[in-house]
Amino acid sequence: MVRVYALKMVPPFAQGLVRDLRVRWALEEAGIPYETRLLDREKKEADSDWYRKLQPFGQVPVYEEEGIQLFESGAILLHIAAKSPKLFPKDLAAKERATGWVFAALTSIEPFLTPLVQTDIFFANEEWAKLRRPSALEAARGRLTALSKWLEGKDYLEGGDFTAGDLMMTTVLRIPRHITLIEEFPVLDSYKKRCEARPAFQKALDSQMAPFLQK
Amino acid sequence: MVRVYALKMVPPFAQGLVRDLRVRWALEEAGIPYETRLLDREKKEADSDWYRKLQPFGQVPVYEEEGIQLFESGAILLHIAAKSPKLFPKDLAAKERATGWVFAALTSIEPFLTPLVQTDIFFANEEWAKLRRPSALEAARGRLTALSKWLEGKDYLEGGDFTAGDLMMTTVLRIPRHITLIEEFPVLDSYKKRCEARPAFQKALDSQMAPFLQK
Repeated sequence: MVRVYALKMVPPFAQGLVRDLRVRWALEEAGIPYETRLLDREKKEADSDWYRKLQPFGQVPVYEEEGIQLFESGAILLHIAAKSPKLFPKDLAAKERATGWVFAALTSIEPFLTPLVQTDIFFANEEWAKLRRPSALEAARGRLTALSKWLEGKDYLEGGDFTAGDLMMTTVLRIPRHITLIEEFPVLDSYKKRCEARPAFQKALDSQMAPFLQK
Repeated sequence: MVRVYALKMVPPFAQGLVRDLRVRWALEEAGIPYETRLLDREKKEADSDWYRKLQPFGQVPVYEEEGIQLFESGAILLHIAAKSPKLFPKDLAAKERATGWVFAALTSIEPFLTPLVQTDIFFANEEWAKLRRPSALEAARGRLTALSKWLEGKDYLEGGDFTAGDLMMTTVLRIPRHITLIEEFPVLDSYKKRCEARPAFQKALDSQMAPFLQK
């Protein structure tokens, strides 16, 4: 049985963004059932010695299956993608391209979006955040412009078929949802909505949200 | 023949850090010969239409071999690692762990180090950079403390053998070389030096530096 470690509760601004969503989505696409182990923040389980042995930085997700124990959502996604033609094309060259987009989402796009979460949410009351914001926004727009240009006329990053690269990119494009940044780029906005409309995404999102919505 | 796209010239602060170093190092470990195509910044080749078709964000490296065209240093590293036992263990579980560390270097450590390059180098004259620096430094120290704890008593991230994960982590730990941050963590400092002492790293670094040192 596959097990995914996630969080029992997170603040509203993080709900639907926590990185176990990527793993849940991949498992839903691949049709692999899984159980969850929800970490209790009040008990500081994510900072406990036993959990730090699974995840040195005290974050989610962690993924377990018979003989495999893995952290980092990107690595887990590749591991699951290797099991399913819905996430990885069979052709090696195409598979490597999909892998390239997983990394591009995480290292060429995400680092340009998270600064806006820092300036607008985490450090919103800091003077530096106000002063930093314009250059952070400009840098984010630069990357999104390049991505939008790439995606023009394409349904997915590599053209015809949804891959693990699109899955990761979609979760990254969800990050600045507190502002209307993605909406400035109609190509990206419709791409994101196209990916989010997949039943596997909706199931994954519902599963992540369920414990947050409990009394 | 393998071809790696790199830069003909970069400012001194970036020399020895440009991301093609990761690819060169992997190729040296794997014993795979390669040629380079050096992009001329004065001619704005990295921003040209033809290069943006290879790399949508106008960055290096790009990797080419017969039938494969790839960008993102992480993806290229995994592609090369799959060809060499010096970079990936044969056992699947161990291979996936190494992949996990490639992602950890890029998404759990690098994003906590690059802010210090921004505050100290790129935006050094900005008021926000001065105000931002203490919290950025604190966050970096937090991550490095966790990594140091993980590495205590180990030669490499997964114990006995150097893998692609160590290669990527070493290139990330090189980033804050303008300050003595890594040196605050003796475990990390000796780990980084252990990896940098590998002949393949030295060859890769020399190859990257060679064009920068030409008249």
